[in-house]
This record gives sequence, structure tokens and C-alpha cells, in this order.
Amino acid sequence: MANQKKMVEDITSMDVDFAKWYTDVVKKTELVDYSSVKGCMVIRPYGYAIWENMQADLDRRFKETGHENVYMPMLIPESLLQREKDHVAGFAPEVAWVTQGGGEPLTERLCIRPTSEVLFCEHYAHIIQSYRDLPKLYNQWCSVLRWEKTTRPFLRSSEFLWQEGHTMHETAEEAMEETERMLGVYTDFYRETLAIPAVTGRKTEKEKFAGAIATYTIEPMMHNGVALQGGTSHYFGDGFTKAFGITFTGRDNKLSSPFQTSWGVSTRMIGAVIMTHGDDNGLALPPKIAPVQVVIVPIAMHKPGVLDKANELKARLSKFVRVKLDDSDNSPGWKFSEYEMKGVPLRLEIGPKDIENNQCVLVRRDNREKLFVSLDELETAIPQALQAVHDGLYNRALENLQNRTFTATSYEEFLQTASEKSGFIKAMWCGDVACEDKIKDETGGVKSRCIPFEEEHLSDTCMCCGKPAKHMVYWGRQY
Amino acid sequence: MANQKKMVEDITSMDVDFAKWYTDVVKKTELVDYSSVKGCMVIRPYGYAIWENMQADLDRRFKETGHENVYMPMLIPESLLQREKDHVAGFAPEVAWVTQGGGEPLTERLCIRPTSEVLFCEHYAHIIQSYRDLPKLYNQWCSVLRWEKTTRPFLRSSEFLWQEGHTMHETAEEAMEETERMLGVYTDFYRETLAIPAVTGRKTEKEKFAGAIATYTIEPMMHNGVALQGGTSHYFGDGFTKAFGITFTGRDNKLSSPFQTSWGVSTRMIGAVIMTHGDDNGLALPPKIAPVQVVIVPIAMHKPGVLDKANELKARLSKFVRVKLDDSDNSPGWKFSEYEMKGVPLRLEIGPKDIENNQCVLVRRDNREKLFVSLDELETAIPQALQAVHDGLYNRALENLQNRTFTATSYEEFLQTASEKSGFIKAMWCGDVACEDKIKDETGGVKSRCIPFEEEHLSDTCMCCGKPAKHMVYWGRQY
Repeated sequence: MANQKKMVEDITSMDVDFAKWYTDVVKKTELVDYSSVKGCMVIRPYGYAIWENMQADLDRRFKETGHENVYMPMLIPESLLQREKDHVAGFAPEVAWVTQGGGEPLTERLCIRPTSEVLFCEHYAHIIQSYRDLPKLYNQWCSVLRWEKTTRPFLRSSEFLWQEGHTMHETAEEAMEETERMLGVYTDFYRETLAIPAVTGRKTEKEKFAGAIATYTIEPMMHNGVALQGGTSHYFGDGFTKAFGITFTGRDNKLSSPFQTSWGVSTRMIGAVIMTHGDDNGLALPPKIAPVQVVIVPIAMHKPGVLDKANELKARLSKFVRVKLDDSDNSPGWKFSEYEMKGVPLRLEIGPKDIENNQCVLVRRDNREKLFVSLDELETAIPQALQAVHDGLYNRALENLQNRTFTATSYEEFLQTASEKSGFIKAMWCGDVACEDKIKDETGGVKSRCIPFEEEHLSDTCMCCGKPAKHMVYWGRQY
Repeated sequence: MANQKKMVEDITSMDVDFAKWYTDVVKKTELVDYSSVKGCMVIRPYGYAIWENMQADLDRRFKETGHENVYMPMLIPESLLQREKDHVAGFAPEVAWVTQGGGEPLTERLCIRPTSEVLFCEHYAHIIQSYRDLPKLYNQWCSVLRWEKTTRPFLRSSEFLWQEGHTMHETAEEAMEETERMLGVYTDFYRETLAIPAVTGRKTEKEKFAGAIATYTIEPMMHNGVALQGGTSHYFGDGFTKAFGITFTGRDNKLSSPFQTSWGVSTRMIGAVIMTHGDDNGLALPPKIAPVQVVIVPIAMHKPGVLDKANELKARLSKFVRVKLDDSDNSPGWKFSEYEMKGVPLRLEIGPKDIENNQCVLVRRDNREKLFVSLDELETAIPQALQAVHDGLYNRALENLQNRTFTATSYEEFLQTASEKSGFIKAMWCGDVACEDKIKDETGGVKSRCIPFEEEHLSDTCMCCGKPAKHMVYWGRQY
């Protein structure tokens, strides 16, 4: 179809080279710029505005579930990082160390936070005395740094922006409930705000967070079938709280250690949005996070009345959507391509004939459907059309997830699927890390994504070793 | 007067020890906690909520004046920091250096950003080509780090949160306008949002920012007469842009370098609020930034109907103010002291008699005035009372500023005032740094605050050296 033709010529096609397509999109749409610090990116206004919209939505969800924001130092003394042995083993290899300050060598190295469990624990030890002080439900928005060898904008960068929730509870049950509640908040956010469906569940022992007892994860699938760990929520039991000497006087008047969780999502989500919804024309942004939700493109702009009407519509629409009017001298065709590339969910075209007919044309970004809408009905038609774009994006992503989810009951079948298809493979597993290692080696990178909350029974035995199966696992490659 | 008595016994009196009073207030009101990293603070929920309210208000003002938010890396390679010689000379002594990353020594040291001029310049060099790309009006919210020997919560800490605007303009005039515009935004914010009056003007050569041509400053006066540099706006000319090779093709088709500004305010403003409005009972928060604007204290809470009415009022008030209901078992007297200490602008008392009379009692934090208000009129009475608290705080601070501003026309008079009074001294100055140095030495720390936008003519000669006077200067001690 003519209206399906590729309008933006300088973005590599997804099918030709998905990685190049991704890099082209983030550069051409001006989401990021590279900096002279390896692995650290500049987030440009259009990219940062997406992040601000994500932040505002998540922050509201966190506050509605009783959380409060705080700010912890960006530096961690080496001795503090070492207080919990699994944690330091996991993070020490990838931190950056400050060794000089104020012109002098430091007596103790300080690392730039890769995550802040130990800082929160140190603070909680100061302020928790009684069960009346619990729960403590804190979150912080900040940047963290993990030294990465290979980096890609948003997906894997040495520095990234994120939020990290850190909570303390009177009982293990309450902490487990919090861990699951926050994974639920993420799942709702992905579905309702990012229009992204996902598989959710528990990480295997091998894949869980350094120091955690259990890690829960949300795993959306990118357009090319590769998974992205989209957010995690960890249950720590009382391991850290004992290591940090955090105690409280319980209802029984005895000293106990509280139970802990942490959970986080990051600017990676921007990468997830790009790779879930984007196409060969560029970005396709879910309306809830799009910096511009509706772009007004005047047609035959220099004819009398057109620009006045366009300005009038802009003023009217700005009361209920994020709207931009492009009244530059570029041609309408150039503008169509530009805002398609930038992923603006709805384009509103208004020209002399439309004005005569008291109507305008709305064009959806997700499927290019054209709607002729009376100018009297914009207050209802535009929110409806935005919801339709959201649903269109969600359903297309869901279809992709379903079409690319496979099942294997034998190792042969698993290896064949892993080599021929890109997507998730559901298969039974014995629970042994040796099988995970073998699978990763022999497929060149397929790992367990998660044990889903609702497991299916595909067979009695581990598809890899033949021992009795303990779990059904989603397997896949990842970013 | 009885209602003026000191209700919170464990805060040191301001008159006894202002520094101790300050530390008591930030600790007892749970604004901050200390951390194991020297000079870095934990900002607790109540402190961070104040910062969030400041941020939201400022961010709106920045966006209304056309600015966009971005995010730059937190690390700066040493070679990049060295590109502008005055700048590096100013900042190199107080930065922290990362020398190891990912388990290996780095080939080049990276400093944690003390400010981000050089990062913005590097990025602007990539994206500015034509006069059509100008102006660029960027801002970022982030944390920065400057190694400080002596630190105090909010006032001077190694790490602090701030915003830094960095803009590029086609002409020197436009850049100067921006520099002044943003100082104006800060001045409005201090007055309208923080209820803080201030002196504004230009810094002397000695006191200006490292690398700037001109620095403009807002200088509020704390309750004890000491100044606090509350925010600065810098004009850079084209010094940095030439050093960084930023060029654009102008309207004349020739290559030129753009003109630059930067401007910033930080979590220091929380310190300014504490020390401007606080008293011996603790904090007194301006309503616009108070995390809780109205606290409802039920009287005779266990009498029938009281708690129901309190809950009903909470639901009703939450539609237009930030409201908290304290229905804990603590006595009303304890609650009065607690929320006075926390600086909540308005207390709403509701008891059986009030309910009978269809009224409640509003008590203002600034002057403890009691207002008996019909329950039918809360939607108008509460916003009015909050405005009255704002005005009350502002006027008290203005009176303090006026009462503590002195004039000196001879050096003898200047030294006497500096030793006997705490506040600003207006005096004429020849423009010579030697006089600034002498004054600082001989007074033990009095420095030029600024040359105000509207200078008075106090005498013909410099009060220090007797040479012809160039400017009237505000002098004072500072935090």
C-alpha cells in the first residue's frame, strides 16, 4: 500500500540490521548524544521529556502505595560496601572508585553507587527502633554507575538514571507482599502507560540479584524477539539487616531484625519502548509518555485563515493534551515524515477545505488510519484516538509476544528452536544451575528469563538433563 | 505573652547559639541524617518533600521561560575540564577524582562533576551549526560534588542537589538578557514561593564564578544577619565557546561563536528557608513549599463524632491543600508542639464544641494568631490564611533585612559597624581588589556581597582607601 511506504530514508530497516536500526533511531530522533566519557550518554530534551513523563507516572504510583522519596549520598566507602558478602562480590568488579579528593589521596576508597542497599541499611540502622517505626517505605530517584565494557544508549550504559525503592518490614510475609506488590506496580505501568505486555515471574538462583533471597522480574519482548529485563523487585529476608545490625523492639518486647525489599526500573525502559513499538519509520511512542501527543500540521498554510485556525486549535487542545503546532516553512510532506519518525501518536491536519467543512483529519501513528473529525468534537475524539493508538500499540506488541513464544519438550527441540527462532521458549527444568550453564554455552547465550507465576506442566522431566522437572521456565536471549 | 513561650524544650535557643539551633532544627525535624561519607548527607522524607515542592515550582518557571531539561554525564575527563583555563583553576582543587573503574586503573582521571559547563559545551559543539539552532535553552537537575573541608547540612556539603541552566545565544545582548532574566526568575521564586526578600546585583571581579565575565547573585539575609549566596546567574561571553570550538553560521553567512550563560540554585535554599523563617520552636515553612500545609488536630478525639468530622474535613481539604490528620494517641498539646516544630503553616483544631458551633479553629504558625472559622467557609478561609502566613513570614524577614542593613561612609565607621552589628553594610568602593582583601582581613571575613542593580550615592570616595568611588557595594559575612 502506498501509505505503508518507507518515508524516512536514512533509518536502516529493522529487517536488514536491527542493531543499526536502533542506533539510527536514537540518534535521528535526537534522544541521545554521545559524550567523551566512554559509556555515558547525554540525554537530549526529547529523550529526557519521555523520562520525565515516565517518572511522573511512576512517582504517583509509588506515592499511592505509601512510599516516600529520599536522597542518599552518591558515594559508598569501601568498608560499607563490604558489609554484606554476596552483595560486594556481585558489585565490586563493576564499580568506579574515587581515590583522590580535594587535591589529596583518600585514606579509604569510595565507590560511586552502583545501587544503594548498603546506604539505606546504614540509615535505617539509625532510625528504626520499634515495630512502630515499621514499615519504612522509601524510594529515591538518582543516577547510578556500573562500569560496562560494551554499551548501548539506554540499554546498557555505565551511568543510567533510575529509581530504587528500599523498604523495611516487621515480618517476612509483609516484605514478600511488598516485593510482589511492586512488581505488580511495574507490570501495570508497562501495560497501562508504556503499552507493553510482558512475562513476569521469579528469577532462578543463578540469575537473581547479588545478596537477594528472591528476585522477581518483568520481561517484555522486543520486536525482534529478544528479551529485556524490564524491572526487578527483590526480597532480601533479614540477611542485610543482620549484617548491618538493624534491630527493632517487637510487639513481644524482644529485639528482632526487620525484613527488607528493594526494587528498581531505569532509563532502560526508553530502550524497551523504542524496540517494542518502533518501526522502519522511526519511533512510535505510547501516548501517555509522548512529549508531544498531537502535532498540528497546517495544510496550504499561507491561505487566509489556516494559520489562525491552527493557532486557535493549538490553544484549545493544550487544555487537555500535549500539543505542538509546526508552522515552519517546511513542506507538509516533510513534517509528516518528521513527526512519524519522532513517534508522535496523532497528527492533526487542517487546511482550507477542512475549515470550510468544519473538520480536520487525524492520522494515527500506529497504523496510519485517517479519521475525519468534526471540529466540534475534538474534546472527545482526540482522547479516544489517543486511547486507540495505545491499544493498537499494545495489541501489536502482544501479538508479537504470542507469536514468538515457543514450547520445547526435548533438548533437541529446544536447541533447534533456539537456533531457528528468536523469542521465548517455554520448557521444563530440573532446578539445577548446571543445566542453565550448559544451555547458555550450547546456544550461545540463551538464559532463563524467569519461572512465571503461573507455570504450565509441559512434561515430567527437565528438557535438558532428563531429571524430574521442578519448574517451567521461560528461556530467551536478552539485551 | 503566654502563647509566645518556648514549647519545644530540646531545641537550643537561637540567641544562645545560632549554629547549634540550626543543627538541632535539621535533626529534630528529621530533614537530614548524617552518613558515613564525610560531608554527604541523607535527605530524609520531610526534607526531600520540601525539595520536591521547590523543584516543581522552579521547573514550571523554567519551562514557562522556554527552557528544556536534559541530562549530562556525572563524570568529566580531566582533559575536558582543562579546556577553559580559569574554570579549571577554580574547580580543580575541590573535585573528587575517579582513578579506577571495572577493576582496572584508568588511563585518564575522571572527576565527578562540580558543575557542568564543559559537558554542555562539548554537547553544544555537536549540535549547533546555524543561527537557526539558537538559542539553546537547556537545564538539568542533578547532584554535584565539591570536596569541602567544613560541612553543614544544606548550607555547605560535599554533595548537593541543584539545577544548572546552560544556554547559548546568537548575540551578546541576548545572552546578557538571559542572565538577568534568570536572576529575575530566582528573585521572584524567593519572594513568591519561599517568602524571602533579598538584595540582588552583580558580584565583584574577585567574587565572580571561575570563567565567567559577570556573575549576578541573589543574597538573602538570614535571621542572624549573615548573608547566604542564594543563587547565581553567569554571563560567559564567548570565552568557553571559543575554547570548545562551538561555531555557527550567522545571518551574514559567516562563522561566529555563540554567547553563553549558566545559572543555578541548590538544596542550600532549604538552609535559607530554615534560617530566614525559623524560630526557637523550630521550622516555620512558607505554605507554597510546606509538605503539609494544614495539620488537623482533633480535640477530645474519643468523644462521639469528632474523629468522623476530622476525617471528613481531611477528605474535603485534600482537594485544595496538602493536609494531614494526626489521629494518633498523643495528646493535643504534644501535637501542637510537634507540628509547630515541623513548621506546618496552619493548624486546624476541631472538637465537640466546635462541631456544635459548626466551626473550627485555625492557628497560624508565623504569629500563632487564632481564627475561628465557619465550617462552611473553609474553601476560602484556608487559602486566605495560608496567604496570610506567607505574607507574615515575608514581612518579618523584610523587616529583619531592613533593620540589619547599615550604612558606612568612613572606614572607621565601617569597622565599628562590622564588629558591633550583624547584617549588611552599604558603602562606597573604588573597584580595587586590594580594598576587598584588606576589608576581609581586618574584619575577619566581611566580603562584598554584590553591587546592587540600583546603587545609591553615599559619598564620592572609597570608604576604605579614599580613592574615587566607582560603586556602592553591599558588604557582609556569609555562610
